Amino acid sequence: MTERLEAGFSCPAPLADRRTVLLGHGSGGKLSAELVRDLFLPAFRHPALACLNDQAIVEVKGCRLAFTTDSFVVKPLFFPGGDIGTLAVHGTINDLAMGGAQPLFLSVALILEEGLPMESLRRIVASLQQAADRAGVGIVTGDTKVVEKGSGDGIFITTSGIGVVPDGLMLSADLARPGDSVLLSGSIGDHGMTILGQREGLEFESAVRSDSAALHTLVADMLAASDRFRCFRDPTRGGLASALNEIAASAGVGIELEEPSIPVREEVRGACELLGLDPMYVANEGKLVAIVDAADADRVVDVMRAHPLGRFARRIGTVRAAPSPVVTMRTTFGTTRIVDMLAGDQLPRIC
Amino acid sequence: MTERLEAGFSCPAPLADRRTVLLGHGSGGKLSAELVRDLFLPAFRHPALACLNDQAIVEVKGCRLAFTTDSFVVKPLFFPGGDIGTLAVHGTINDLAMGGAQPLFLSVALILEEGLPMESLRRIVASLQQAADRAGVGIVTGDTKVVEKGSGDGIFITTSGIGVVPDGLMLSADLARPGDSVLLSGSIGDHGMTILGQREGLEFESAVRSDSAALHTLVADMLAASDRFRCFRDPTRGGLASALNEIAASAGVGIELEEPSIPVREEVRGACELLGLDPMYVANEGKLVAIVDAADADRVVDVMRAHPLGRFARRIGTVRAAPSPVVTMRTTFGTTRIVDMLAGDQLPRIC
Repeated sequence: MTERLEAGFSCPAPLADRRTVLLGHGSGGKLSAELVRDLFLPAFRHPALACLNDQAIVEVKGCRLAFTTDSFVVKPLFFPGGDIGTLAVHGTINDLAMGGAQPLFLSVALILEEGLPMESLRRIVASLQQAADRAGVGIVTGDTKVVEKGSGDGIFITTSGIGVVPDGLMLSADLARPGDSVLLSGSIGDHGMTILGQREGLEFESAVRSDSAALHTLVADMLAASDRFRCFRDPTRGGLASALNEIAASAGVGIELEEPSIPVREEVRGACELLGLDPMYVANEGKLVAIVDAADADRVVDVMRAHPLGRFARRIGTVRAAPSPVVTMRTTFGTTRIVDMLAGDQLPRIC
Repeated sequence: MTERLEAGFSCPAPLADRRTVLLGHGSGGKLSAELVRDLFLPAFRHPALACLNDQAIVEVKGCRLAFTTDSFVVKPLFFPGGDIGTLAVHGTINDLAMGGAQPLFLSVALILEEGLPMESLRRIVASLQQAADRAGVGIVTGDTKVVEKGSGDGIFITTSGIGVVPDGLMLSADLARPGDSVLLSGSIGDHGMTILGQREGLEFESAVRSDSAALHTLVADMLAASDRFRCFRDPTRGGLASALNEIAASAGVGIELEEPSIPVREEVRGACELLGLDPMYVANEGKLVAIVDAADADRVVDVMRAHPLGRFARRIGTVRAAPSPVVTMRTTFGTTRIVDMLAGDQLPRIC
């Protein structure tokens, strides 16, 4: 962020050696965006991909389908509030839900490392099915590969999902317009700090739990309350800051946040301060941010608060015409700071 | 195979330590089948999964979709006839095609190891797109994760696919009936021996090429020539032997093969003999086996031979009522041998 401020908004942060893949290329931040922009988009030219939403909307025989995929490499495999199995189901359901789709079917592809305890696999498979059952989604197809000890890390899971998009619904980050409201469904940073605490054996580990959850019923309730949504995002890797920067860049708008309105649990805030982390960049797995016409914002927040996963929903900011595409935040102290996209890699293998 | 003969057909081969995942659990043979039967099927209870076909057929708003997923962990990443990118596209297209579906859309999820040369990634991404373009299929959504050096192996790719199944078409391995013909589209073992040759630096490496190819247009031509197909399979991991054993087990039938009718390239046969491998168990990535009513077999073989990927198509055997579920082969020497499912792991990370 400092780099960008010094450079006067126009010069991207200097990137490290690009001859090889870096951990930061998987961070969901600037290096990820660079990889997508410079390597994937020029090669993969399908218009559905060019939208850069979390899911593709494709048409099959007049039926609008949402289609998405995500690999999960979280470490450790088990953590308070979930495991790699629940995460793999919730993450893909959420990518469908962010497109307004009703999730229907999931595929599960496992890459196992030789020597993985069979009991771990059994627990993870049970988690996958339980999470899918709770969400009312069917796991209908799968695949298993095994790599030699030392060529993987226990288990990697790739889930893909198909959902059906309601007729007439158009959601896309580039639809955000000045004056729109920015809504957040609850506290930020819970998942990321849980993983970090577990991994490093830090003292706060028992106090925080991952927020991993399937958000499709919350989205359905919200869509029933307004037909003026622009887009939904689940702020996972790169955190809320990166999700909002993506929206600002897609729509060519500014986003102005009110820091006091953004809920952060006390234990998460304390852990972040201790470690010098900014909760705006810490991953979430059961939260969403939505852009909606300001006229409907209060009504939608009421509906969100009536849902178990939206009890602490808030209006956290406003879309502005300028400065574009910049996310700014009016801090608790009355100053304004720029909330840039995550530059490096705050915490690898968060999901 | 010897074990099974000695035990009199009823006792499965003794399985090694099941407390941990073994390389053989990814072989496509007996250990893979055990994992599916004992762990995945009891957990994942969706009826589409229970069919154990290479793809799920699901219905969305009256439209029959095929949905499939596969992870690719092949080593080395580049080999004569293709690379992990072409394989990832062809493999998933073929799984859709084996359900009779017209492949429409693919997702691509990458798990990269920190330190992967950017140039390798660039080549593989180009291969993915070129293979999809040639097949007329769109790559519409994707994901990238990066794991630390030593926690992966260069690149793993998971592709998922959606296709549309023609109205009224019913294909399933359990539909095979005594009297049906078994058709094969060409020579076996090319892909597996290519990978093995590359990996071990063997002398025959220059003589063989992977058969990696997308089979959906061949399947479409075949379906146009007969409406009495029972099922299609692409004999990948575990080879032709394992694919036919799966069909025999699903349908509760026997399958009798004629060894002289099964095409094996001279260089592949030589390499197999040198290494003590049976081409019946070596992986293919551009071949299919089909079960069809005997009355239509000759006509279908003619159609296959008119397609570039079916020039060496043959009728290789017949479905029998007994012994069930056993695959037998009348050898070149006039004897009969049992062709069991692959027991261990002939060659890990073949795809």
